[in-house]
Amino acid sequence: MRPFSRASQSLQGSVYSRFAGRMSTYRGPVYPLHIGDTWMEPAEGCRMEDLRVADHPGMHRYTRVQGLPALVDALAAEVQGFTGTPTTAAEVLVGAGGTGCLAAAIGALVDPGARVVILAPHWPLVAGMVTAFGGEAVVVPFLGAVGSAAEAAALLASHLDDRTVAVYWNTPNNPTGRHIPRAWLEAMVEVCRAHDVVILADEVYERYVYSGTHTPSRPLAPERTVSIHSFSKAYGMAGNRVGWLVGPADLIEHAKRVSTHTFYSAPTGGQLAGLAALGPAGTAWREDARAKYAELGAYAADRLGAARPEGSTFLFLDVAEHLDEDGLEGFLVRAADRGLLLAPGPSFGPYPTHVRICFTSAAPDLVRAGVDVLADLLGR
Amino acid sequence: MRPFSRASQSLQGSVYSRFAGRMSTYRGPVYPLHIGDTWMEPAEGCRMEDLRVADHPGMHRYTRVQGLPALVDALAAEVQGFTGTPTTAAEVLVGAGGTGCLAAAIGALVDPGARVVILAPHWPLVAGMVTAFGGEAVVVPFLGAVGSAAEAAALLASHLDDRTVAVYWNTPNNPTGRHIPRAWLEAMVEVCRAHDVVILADEVYERYVYSGTHTPSRPLAPERTVSIHSFSKAYGMAGNRVGWLVGPADLIEHAKRVSTHTFYSAPTGGQLAGLAALGPAGTAWREDARAKYAELGAYAADRLGAARPEGSTFLFLDVAEHLDEDGLEGFLVRAADRGLLLAPGPSFGPYPTHVRICFTSAAPDLVRAGVDVLADLLGR
Repeated sequence: MRPFSRASQSLQGSVYSRFAGRMSTYRGPVYPLHIGDTWMEPAEGCRMEDLRVADHPGMHRYTRVQGLPALVDALAAEVQGFTGTPTTAAEVLVGAGGTGCLAAAIGALVDPGARVVILAPHWPLVAGMVTAFGGEAVVVPFLGAVGSAAEAAALLASHLDDRTVAVYWNTPNNPTGRHIPRAWLEAMVEVCRAHDVVILADEVYERYVYSGTHTPSRPLAPERTVSIHSFSKAYGMAGNRVGWLVGPADLIEHAKRVSTHTFYSAPTGGQLAGLAALGPAGTAWREDARAKYAELGAYAADRLGAARPEGSTFLFLDVAEHLDEDGLEGFLVRAADRGLLLAPGPSFGPYPTHVRICFTSAAPDLVRAGVDVLADLLGR
Repeated sequence: MRPFSRASQSLQGSVYSRFAGRMSTYRGPVYPLHIGDTWMEPAEGCRMEDLRVADHPGMHRYTRVQGLPALVDALAAEVQGFTGTPTTAAEVLVGAGGTGCLAAAIGALVDPGARVVILAPHWPLVAGMVTAFGGEAVVVPFLGAVGSAAEAAALLASHLDDRTVAVYWNTPNNPTGRHIPRAWLEAMVEVCRAHDVVILADEVYERYVYSGTHTPSRPLAPERTVSIHSFSKAYGMAGNRVGWLVGPADLIEHAKRVSTHTFYSAPTGGQLAGLAALGPAGTAWREDARAKYAELGAYAADRLGAARPEGSTFLFLDVAEHLDEDGLEGFLVRAADRGLLLAPGPSFGPYPTHVRICFTSAAPDLVRAGVDVLADLLGR
């Protein structure tokens, strides 16, 4: 057989699967803090069991590829209300989760050889998406590497060249739980404008803010910003595979052509569930989740001696002091031997001594117990 | 703004959207025979409303990217039973519909500049998928152009070169409703083996056979064949976005890496619905649907003076005799002015005077009435 495509060869398999064999013989409680998810079931009224054929005849059939018209309209109104930036239906694309949406936007922008600058630490899959479309991911350590708007702008500018078509950033940030400050975003937006590059603003944790202020990027440069959003994160619907993009109508049209050819449309049932979640039940669920997540994030940070998260559902810890000659792999194995699963730092950029935990991926008691195991491993 | 990616610029927008404006002012019954779907609701017990959190806790959360273990195992057994070819779980990938599955397989094979030979008439989106990953789609008119196994093999061989990585065929065929005969497949498989190219065998209509025999391709060359299957078509679940690939484990692994980076996983609820559909209720539904589809296909073919379909849910008609100086576009407009929507031939390859109808996309009375409109337009 011929070799597989260079892109697929360069893509990593699941970073989480490597301990599956090891865990299969482990007998004891498992703390799956490596996954970015929630233990909460979605709001009542917003679950699959609530979507009845009697109410939604044809709900298992194809929908319009852009998304159900009622959902697209509702999202445009929601985004306009949340950001204050005028938003029309033509500026919205519903897709197969934030993942599918971001991949479609990247496919609309990236030709073979094109570069996308990715501010790190970053959401793991974004670099591979650029690779999958033949582009080059330029990963730039950012949070923790710069301390002012001027430094942020200068660092970004130093990595842009004629091949750069887009810049990706993620705030509230997965994995660090930090905001990118407004002043930094404003300065970086000017750099993007001067170099005529698109901004891919991953804001899937926009509803999970515990301190400080989340600054949506699109209002700063609506002409060149595509923001990525997700029912997965906002409403506990990761399995539904429904997210949305907001950006310039022509970019949305091109992203839609790519999404049509990679997954066709978001699932109809998941779109109906998302539409329901935009109502009062979803809002109440989100507020309840935010309070619970805030408490768990504070517990985890305090117990681990880390700064409390400003947003998202993650903490990113440098465990360099606790590594022996087996390095990070050895640390992950020691954790796994006690039932604790952690996401390795290299998934998020050049962070060979970091681990990420998600403090919402299991029921609160399990999260706290897993955090206690980690604290013990760290001598805290 | 810079231009969009060459791939996204070359992709077509929806071929079905062009009459949307025209139809918005039309007052009368609409016959949407342009869409490949079914009017039937899925089997009871296999609908979203049947998937309860109480029975499936965590059913709105992420699943394993390869697919729910129980579903992957059930599909491996199903495929082995249907084809007689040994099939393991490692040879199965569940994805976002047949579309997402085929796109992932193409992403695993196609580098920029690589070629995929597509036997036409073909399912519309496949050519764009090759383009989306930077490859070149070589569309070869096939059904209707060759009359024997030797001719089929010779035609295929004449289009393979050093850049060709794969060949796509679709049987039972969308849009023609024909099988590719076993002898032709056997001869073409030898050509693919001799040239060391992968076979992409789109068999999403494998359960909808009304006459003749469907020949699955994978048993003829399991070492190089990826077959594409779909709950959408088999069980009336197009909106669920769940399909599956079957092929060599290393190809499945690479396709999984691509699917992880384009839509992450198939929706969890849709996977549970698919698993339910593999049981007795789904089988009974499928048999009932097949009987109804056979009757509608026969009605449509007889009324239109065409050969009855052997399989699938389509007829592909050459309307050259009925075109005036406005060509196919004029014919489509005349049909739309009477509420009848048809898929244009050029979506399926170099067929400037053909139209496709789906005889299952609306309730039987509506399909029959739409067929009557078309028969009238054709003077039949």
